[in-house]
Amino acid sequence: MPEILETLDSAIDLHGKSAKELKQVADEIREVLCGLLSIRTAHFASNLGVVELCLALHSTFDFRHDRLIWDTGHQVYPHKLVTGRYKDFANIRTRGGLMGYPNPAESEYDLFMTGHAGCSISTALGLQSGDDIRGEGNRKSVAVIGDGAFPSGIVFEALNNAGELKSDLLMILNDNRMSICPRVGSVATYLDRLRTNPFYTGLKTEVVRMLNHVPVFGDPAERMLAQIKEGVKAGLHGGMLFEELGIRYVGPIDGHDIELMRKYLRMVKDQEGPVLLHVVTEKGHGYQPAAQDPVFFHTPPAFRDEQGEAKILVKSGSPAYTNFARDAIGAAMRRDPRVTVMTAAMCQGNKLEPVREEFPKRFFDVGICESHAVAFAGGQAKTGLKPIVTIYSTFLQRSYDQIFQEAALQNLPVTFMMDRAGLAGPDGPTHHGVYDIGYMRVFPNMVLMAPGTGAELGQMLDFAIELDCPVGIRYPKAAAAEMELPEQPIKLGKSQVARWGTDGAILGLGPMLELALAAAEQLAQEGIDIAVINPRFIKPLDQELLAKVFNECRFVITAEEGALMGGFGSAVLELACDQGWDTRVLKRLGIPDEFVEHGEREDLLADAGMSVAGLVEACRELASRAALSV
Amino acid sequence: MPEILETLDSAIDLHGKSAKELKQVADEIREVLCGLLSIRTAHFASNLGVVELCLALHSTFDFRHDRLIWDTGHQVYPHKLVTGRYKDFANIRTRGGLMGYPNPAESEYDLFMTGHAGCSISTALGLQSGDDIRGEGNRKSVAVIGDGAFPSGIVFEALNNAGELKSDLLMILNDNRMSICPRVGSVATYLDRLRTNPFYTGLKTEVVRMLNHVPVFGDPAERMLAQIKEGVKAGLHGGMLFEELGIRYVGPIDGHDIELMRKYLRMVKDQEGPVLLHVVTEKGHGYQPAAQDPVFFHTPPAFRDEQGEAKILVKSGSPAYTNFARDAIGAAMRRDPRVTVMTAAMCQGNKLEPVREEFPKRFFDVGICESHAVAFAGGQAKTGLKPIVTIYSTFLQRSYDQIFQEAALQNLPVTFMMDRAGLAGPDGPTHHGVYDIGYMRVFPNMVLMAPGTGAELGQMLDFAIELDCPVGIRYPKAAAAEMELPEQPIKLGKSQVARWGTDGAILGLGPMLELALAAAEQLAQEGIDIAVINPRFIKPLDQELLAKVFNECRFVITAEEGALMGGFGSAVLELACDQGWDTRVLKRLGIPDEFVEHGEREDLLADAGMSVAGLVEACRELASRAALSV
Repeated sequence: MPEILETLDSAIDLHGKSAKELKQVADEIREVLCGLLSIRTAHFASNLGVVELCLALHSTFDFRHDRLIWDTGHQVYPHKLVTGRYKDFANIRTRGGLMGYPNPAESEYDLFMTGHAGCSISTALGLQSGDDIRGEGNRKSVAVIGDGAFPSGIVFEALNNAGELKSDLLMILNDNRMSICPRVGSVATYLDRLRTNPFYTGLKTEVVRMLNHVPVFGDPAERMLAQIKEGVKAGLHGGMLFEELGIRYVGPIDGHDIELMRKYLRMVKDQEGPVLLHVVTEKGHGYQPAAQDPVFFHTPPAFRDEQGEAKILVKSGSPAYTNFARDAIGAAMRRDPRVTVMTAAMCQGNKLEPVREEFPKRFFDVGICESHAVAFAGGQAKTGLKPIVTIYSTFLQRSYDQIFQEAALQNLPVTFMMDRAGLAGPDGPTHHGVYDIGYMRVFPNMVLMAPGTGAELGQMLDFAIELDCPVGIRYPKAAAAEMELPEQPIKLGKSQVARWGTDGAILGLGPMLELALAAAEQLAQEGIDIAVINPRFIKPLDQELLAKVFNECRFVITAEEGALMGGFGSAVLELACDQGWDTRVLKRLGIPDEFVEHGEREDLLADAGMSVAGLVEACRELASRAALSV
Repeated sequence: MPEILETLDSAIDLHGKSAKELKQVADEIREVLCGLLSIRTAHFASNLGVVELCLALHSTFDFRHDRLIWDTGHQVYPHKLVTGRYKDFANIRTRGGLMGYPNPAESEYDLFMTGHAGCSISTALGLQSGDDIRGEGNRKSVAVIGDGAFPSGIVFEALNNAGELKSDLLMILNDNRMSICPRVGSVATYLDRLRTNPFYTGLKTEVVRMLNHVPVFGDPAERMLAQIKEGVKAGLHGGMLFEELGIRYVGPIDGHDIELMRKYLRMVKDQEGPVLLHVVTEKGHGYQPAAQDPVFFHTPPAFRDEQGEAKILVKSGSPAYTNFARDAIGAAMRRDPRVTVMTAAMCQGNKLEPVREEFPKRFFDVGICESHAVAFAGGQAKTGLKPIVTIYSTFLQRSYDQIFQEAALQNLPVTFMMDRAGLAGPDGPTHHGVYDIGYMRVFPNMVLMAPGTGAELGQMLDFAIELDCPVGIRYPKAAAAEMELPEQPIKLGKSQVARWGTDGAILGLGPMLELALAAAEQLAQEGIDIAVINPRFIKPLDQELLAKVFNECRFVITAEEGALMGGFGSAVLELACDQGWDTRVLKRLGIPDEFVEHGEREDLLADAGMSVAGLVEACRELASRAALSV
């Protein structure tokens, strides 16, 4: 029973607590996390890792006044538990309940809705700079950023700016040696070196003090001496990478020792200029199975704990599109030595571990560096390879300019496998991938597809690899449809007639195909005869078939799991307008012009009319309207 | 008379040349550059700065086999002159002539069409990695990147990956201490420190040799000794920032000494793992006025040289939209202390120097770091400020994900001033800003405008600052229209009727308004009575007025200086479809689905039907078609 947690109205209540009480709060938080998250899929290990850090921060600062940004944001549960949201916590990640990420609508303690990694230093620098300009420089801005997010380009851009502005920004590097997968890259190697730094030896402090007394003058030899001196100091302190950028580096310190962190936080709180405090934490800390396998326990399925042994409560059901993608990628690599794979720290999310294991030399995890992933793939493609970039739709937004310049403009055969294209369910607005149709199809040379079934996803990948241009394939975070469709190989710009009828037609893009077929079957029993088209291609469109549809069917519905603005329906509309077809028979279903909350994907889709019932309803209405206009 | 240059068929011909001959080629290149570029606007100072570097590279490597990427690409003129394009050089940046950037269609020596900064290391790493996988690891990939581009996030992402992959990549840091404006940020300060490094002192080499003989063992004290040793070495070598990331740092060396660079290039050529060679150059080198004022001489207007004194041949004409933007920004800052400005190294391009001078504390040049600029602005906006982000349409593509997460999703009042929205003329496809309508309007909360005149641009900015949401204002690289329009204050989602008529209507977005009015006047003389609408808002659309237009006018034309796919015309079309208006009367003019070459803006627009004659023609045709269908 979480005694103290229950009494906290606000994080400010942590200020009076003793070391012992804070320790108890930490235990209570872990109890709540382990209790709830063993029966609900949510971010788990990362939250266990920051319990003490969260308490040290909230018991040192007053973040109603000071500013706290949790980078990426999935480690925000302890923060929610101590900022007045304990009582609502059981509803986290359910519709209408708390969001699994920071949410300004929930609390004054949440400033930015985060979800994409790496932006916290930029926003915190903006907050600090804004407060300075407004004469409220006594507010302190704090960014907590993980080592996984650290190599993101925007972090470097922010450090470059912070080092120049000399704002009193505090950055806390939460170093748990992980992205979702073990972290990669030379920044990671560098952080590993820092960890071996014998920070507390008296000798070291002594040497630095001595060096501070060595005088420095102007001539070259003496300048060199000065450089040696700085080099020695940096070698002792560690953190040269940051110090060179004008950032004061402090650490590393134990991120599970609340009192130690409080001591350091008090020390750096009033330090002038930007400071980076390096805190070492363990992902999954305090729950043995999670600490041992933090990759699996990043967002584990529901599991039952039996004396410290976690047992997965296996869900049955069709395999996800992600599985079909993984299998198709593996098969392509086996078949074709030109095929390579890029992931941006999402090997686990894309279930690509077996592919990485089988083809270590053609598998590239570049870390949370989506921009680089695409430009890097462009370079490989130029040599004759066939790189596959596997990045979630929402994160690929970070590569917009590289998709433009390094893939589309050069017309290079890079294949983009866009998982989570559509509504990402409980993750909410930062993770819904609803813009990719709009951002991919505008670029010349681009081919864009969406499979109606899991099997078709594999065929599309095979087809894409043989094309000599950039290709995007979008598929949802969902169990793959496994309908029987007519045998028909993928052909550029050719759709598939899943069933024919002339009372109306549904162009059911991707996962909407299955719903459309079910709706059509239901309507057939009412005597309404609906054609169902599997568009397959968003670009180029199947002009011939669409002409037939607009000509012969009395209404046309497009349904897509993506934003209506600039989406697939708009593409059809543009073609119809150019061809002089009457668009008054056309109804476009998709995501309207608002950010979609978190919740179960099916529920959110149904809200936008994309359910069997919704499609049936829309067809009935359009059919009766068409009957009237005859 | 460029004797040697004229005889070069290919860069391989440089391999046999003596030091004296290479020096002569350098002189000849400068002669050609100064001769042509004093009478034609083009990138000038940056090209003068890399003459020797270019010759050192091409006389050391064979880039028909090895791989060379010029980052950003505007410094590629010497490269073009020695790779078989001397005879075509007089036509550079004119329609059908050579492009002002690398262009694979022109030469096997150009691998990527570049234009946006910072991607060269990623692509070169991709090339090196691709060649390794294909068993052609004996090809060497070389990226030449300026210090201005260096703080771009993608560079850091690439270094993080390169340090891990240990590919034999050669990076050449062309350090001229400039972006277009003097460079900024702590990376710049760091590079300045490296320049003071007394690289050649024998003492230094001696110390390093000594340190290499100090043995290192395992216990903490000895690990500390090892760190001191590494620190001393780094202090001597400089380049710790790179060395920490697993990149071997060499330099700095004189970038105008061909033989010295050749020596170093031969040395690093066969070095294993990634190497960064730091080369110091002077922007504008060899032409005194350009070296003295490299900002002005980045892309100077035509000038006459009188004994080393450059005199500008002043062009008359209306002031550009850029001037109106600058003046409006200055006025807003004078009026409202909440207003701040962000630029990504484009202070000069946006003519913002006087604003920077007047408001140094509210003016932020963050360097070529567009992603950071937007997230940073988001942070400031959260504190109650009203940041204006001034980034060209094409470069703002690099902030797509921050526009999504840090501005639109948080619904923060960040105003985006998108200069060069439309066709950027002689700069060509990397610089045309034709996608911003598509990438801005899809985000909920966003308001998007385009002014029809220079004066209106100022009114729109004032209006935007008072709104409490993200706003984009797009305007072209063009002289501002200065028509007399009815007085009508900007009101959210309200268009302006510039003239009324019912034979047809033109919705002339932004600079298309002026053309539409001229076309309407011409048509009036033929008895065709055309309504001309200044839409003002792309989002939200003026539904009321559009209903009237679709209802009363016999045809509707939308004209926009942007991509047709997902653009303004599509937005109108979407609304028409939703409202059940007949879209068979609608014709959308804009940029079709292909990359537009370089050339004069007016010519390129005319190709897409966007000229007075083109609009007149389109109206005539639609009017006669409408007459037939009555």
